[in-house]
Amino acid sequence: MERDWFTNENCSVARTLEVIGERWTMLVLREAFFRVRRFEEFQRNTGAARNILSDRLRTLVDHGILERRRYQDHPPRFEYRLTEKGVDLYPVLISLMQWGDKHAPGEQGPPVVLEHRICGRPTTPTMVCSECGKPLTAREMRALPGPGAIPRAAEG
Amino acid sequence: MERDWFTNENCSVARTLEVIGERWTMLVLREAFFRVRRFEEFQRNTGAARNILSDRLRTLVDHGILERRRYQDHPPRFEYRLTEKGVDLYPVLISLMQWGDKHAPGEQGPPVVLEHRICGRPTTPTMVCSECGKPLTAREMRALPGPGAIPRAAEG
Repeated sequence: MERDWFTNENCSVARTLEVIGERWTMLVLREAFFRVRRFEEFQRNTGAARNILSDRLRTLVDHGILERRRYQDHPPRFEYRLTEKGVDLYPVLISLMQWGDKHAPGEQGPPVVLEHRICGRPTTPTMVCSECGKPLTAREMRALPGPGAIPRAAEG
Repeated sequence: MERDWFTNENCSVARTLEVIGERWTMLVLREAFFRVRRFEEFQRNTGAARNILSDRLRTLVDHGILERRRYQDHPPRFEYRLTEKGVDLYPVLISLMQWGDKHAPGEQGPPVVLEHRICGRPTTPTMVCSECGKPLTAREMRALPGPGAIPRAAEG
């Protein structure tokens, strides 16, 4: 394979996984998209151990994906809300969900269906080309070196 | 949060993460989409240790995401190719890449850009509503219980 223009160091997939590429982290984000905000609710819904949940929330706050806000002073209590950077992870969550719906379904079908508030209909999020609007498939795509490509020969 | 109709057991996101929710696994898949097929190439491009790579390849084969084929008899050598089930993970990879391009970029910009072979133009994969065609944002979506929803009260 002659693809030599990125390594894990400058790969956007690898960089994203550095932040959210851990199972509990994605489950915490799933809950955040369901408007869960409080530690106890995150814990109940994900089933994560408290120390793991604390750690993952801290990571997400440190990376600016969740914002930690005090909502009570005595005793101090905090809630966690998605930032814009966090909201941008929605396509990741949806694409994970869609694959699971199709390839790892329960007997009864998907537990969650989506409705598009704008048109009011049940929707299947679909990845399309920004230019021609046609649905994208992997085989119809070509990956090319971008401005951040680093030819491996130039590395050392 | 009154959302009570799924747990990790029947959640499509959690089920998908059970299979691919591990950093090395996604990096192996990244390579597979770049048409990497052989162990040595996976190893070189991902930087994974051999035992980890063996394990992740086995997991992906066991789940029908990669197919293992013998391409040489003496000595026996195998290659790994994406199945249709594997190709369906493309939106996951692309959405991880897009988030990284935007929120964890290198100084020079993205290492990879995409071209849509069908229209021949550089493209930004965009998630749209299957019904009205408008780009989707998290805040315009509503999640509703699907056929596989399990009311928590009915569990025990």
